[in-house]
Amino acid sequence: MKESLNALKELLISDLTPRTEIDRRIAELKQKMASHHVSFSIILQNVDLLYFTGTAQKGVLIVPLNSDPLFFVEKSLDRAALESPLEIIPVKGDRDIKNILVEKHILKGKGGMEFDVIPVIVYERWKSLLGADDMVDISRLIKEIRLVKSEFEIEQIKRSGKIISKVFEKAKEAIREDMREVDIAAIIESEGRIQGHQGFLRMRGLNQEMMNAYITHGYSATIHSAGDVPISGVGVTHAIPQGPSVNRVKRGIPLVIDYGGGYNGYITDETRTFVVGKLQDMFKKAFDVTREIVEDATEYGCEGKNGTDLYNRAFELVKRAKLEDFFMGYGEGKVSFIGHGLGLEINELPVITPRHSITLREGMVFAYEPKFIFPGKGAVGIEVDYIVRKDSLERVTDTSIDVVCV
Amino acid sequence: MKESLNALKELLISDLTPRTEIDRRIAELKQKMASHHVSFSIILQNVDLLYFTGTAQKGVLIVPLNSDPLFFVEKSLDRAALESPLEIIPVKGDRDIKNILVEKHILKGKGGMEFDVIPVIVYERWKSLLGADDMVDISRLIKEIRLVKSEFEIEQIKRSGKIISKVFEKAKEAIREDMREVDIAAIIESEGRIQGHQGFLRMRGLNQEMMNAYITHGYSATIHSAGDVPISGVGVTHAIPQGPSVNRVKRGIPLVIDYGGGYNGYITDETRTFVVGKLQDMFKKAFDVTREIVEDATEYGCEGKNGTDLYNRAFELVKRAKLEDFFMGYGEGKVSFIGHGLGLEINELPVITPRHSITLREGMVFAYEPKFIFPGKGAVGIEVDYIVRKDSLERVTDTSIDVVCV
Repeated sequence: MKESLNALKELLISDLTPRTEIDRRIAELKQKMASHHVSFSIILQNVDLLYFTGTAQKGVLIVPLNSDPLFFVEKSLDRAALESPLEIIPVKGDRDIKNILVEKHILKGKGGMEFDVIPVIVYERWKSLLGADDMVDISRLIKEIRLVKSEFEIEQIKRSGKIISKVFEKAKEAIREDMREVDIAAIIESEGRIQGHQGFLRMRGLNQEMMNAYITHGYSATIHSAGDVPISGVGVTHAIPQGPSVNRVKRGIPLVIDYGGGYNGYITDETRTFVVGKLQDMFKKAFDVTREIVEDATEYGCEGKNGTDLYNRAFELVKRAKLEDFFMGYGEGKVSFIGHGLGLEINELPVITPRHSITLREGMVFAYEPKFIFPGKGAVGIEVDYIVRKDSLERVTDTSIDVVCV
Repeated sequence: MKESLNALKELLISDLTPRTEIDRRIAELKQKMASHHVSFSIILQNVDLLYFTGTAQKGVLIVPLNSDPLFFVEKSLDRAALESPLEIIPVKGDRDIKNILVEKHILKGKGGMEFDVIPVIVYERWKSLLGADDMVDISRLIKEIRLVKSEFEIEQIKRSGKIISKVFEKAKEAIREDMREVDIAAIIESEGRIQGHQGFLRMRGLNQEMMNAYITHGYSATIHSAGDVPISGVGVTHAIPQGPSVNRVKRGIPLVIDYGGGYNGYITDETRTFVVGKLQDMFKKAFDVTREIVEDATEYGCEGKNGTDLYNRAFELVKRAKLEDFFMGYGEGKVSFIGHGLGLEINELPVITPRHSITLREGMVFAYEPKFIFPGKGAVGIEVDYIVRKDSLERVTDTSIDVVCV
């Protein structure tokens, strides 16, 4: 097995999480736990486990407020040991964990769990196993820690962005009149894989599902989504009502490609507008407003600015162009945000919306996506990813935001 | 919007769920509810919603034991109305639902929810919203209903299987010495998309994640998985420790392709063993045993037979070949089943295992996957999908189970 594991390490194209990262993350969790009077945290969801342990193997992380974290692993022990800087405690099941926790007197006071993702059945089992009555939700604390990215994380995000750039280049080569949206998806998803895409993207919460590539064209971009996104596409079946469809590309009509990069767990999410020939005038005019909005945000944004101001500035440009009715959707399909946080999941904090004020801090990373959707006709838009810096918003990719004419 | 929706319907490549299906499914749920003394069920997970309403739009289905189901939809109203044979009740949020339920006197007695997938936060909100104290888990009831497939469902499953057949043909054309596993994945996932694959596959429960294509070769097939699967691959990052890696194809060493078809929500899941040149002797010998196991099951199985017997017959063949140590994995990586149910999710009932007895009934559909994994060296195996019939096990695809030499 040892030999195999060395070979395995050789196969991973991306870096393992450094010990300094893990130590800092756990220290931050303890700080938050202290201020919320949580005595011990039970981390079960694989993305949070990955964040706090460095591995996504099957295990449970217990973080007691006043002692060292205990990382129980069921399988694979070898792979977890290879990937996590934490000491591994091998267990066969939950009972072993309980016995150790009782022995170490850890089960006192208030316990914390990830209420936003842990199913009732798992929660009930843990509560009864531990004999713990006083459990509280720590998902908000975890999200707040994950909100600000370290330079290690930003490096992964930039690598993730490079996959997007390659994919958009490939799209430019591939798109032809009369192709189906799914055919374009087939080509660019394939390119993503070749460029090192991790395989799939993660979205947190019940019923949150997503694909790597959303190719929408003309009216397929205008169909309302079940999800809280401005454009989701029709899909090929009512069973998965999102993503590319068999709709065929026509000249002059915008083709919107929203693609999610994924590298070492980190997600990037950008959109470009493509067209065969030249964009029809109404689309061109709206597209120019989305470009103005992105240029204004790039100019204006930096640490200390407020997310709501960013939204409001965009909305001023929308009003000036008299396009309010189509901004970020229309009717029941309209969404209330223009940006969303990125990290190990695609729906992280911050949300850039008029509904909640948030002051930008260095290291926050978010997708910014002004889009217009014209009922039945088509959509245009841009989505770029920003890293918040002291004096600027740094773009994750350097891919042009212009309409791509093919 | 009307016009757009007609165009939308034209775009869906697969059939909507017929009213007769929905009526029967809800009637079965009520029967189960009656025998478990559940007065009303709250269905929230999108796959169960799809099963009982015919749409995966954002909504909540309330099934009272003694009156008609109430299907509340938040968005998209138009798309839900197009797809579901049930009457749509438009709502803006949970409060609207509560008011209607109170008005109709539905909130009496025991309520049921899907405890295996509903996060604590959602459960707590619904409990407090409805003022309901007496809630029980109905996930087992739902799984038992979904266990037996109708002819409509079997038709979708067969269409899903056709995608697999095309994908295996493509793999045969594509595989060359020295290619990376990810390059093969790029090609065959792309082919799946072109053939109408729905985009992704669903797996039920916390931390259950999967890809469409698992390409493993030599030792990458032998690395233990975090999941309850015999072979998962290494992946390209510790953040998503499964799937194809950058491992390159060598002559004589088995390349195992485990691919999941997806059509109209329905998942199929088959595996074939490929090789450049000829399989080395030890692999060939083990492969022949997996073929014998599949042939024996195909010969033996039908309604009325027991899943455990199926497993035991396979295990007899394994023992005869003295390959027990490598059957369905080795060490901590060994799994305790040889087959799993298929449907809208990939981990449905029945499970074919010595641990639980299950009598096969007509309409059950399961993947049957004898595999051998040799530590550090490689794996071989076959996975076929079966539909249980009165007098036989019907194969879902007609693709040969032989080793594919390229």
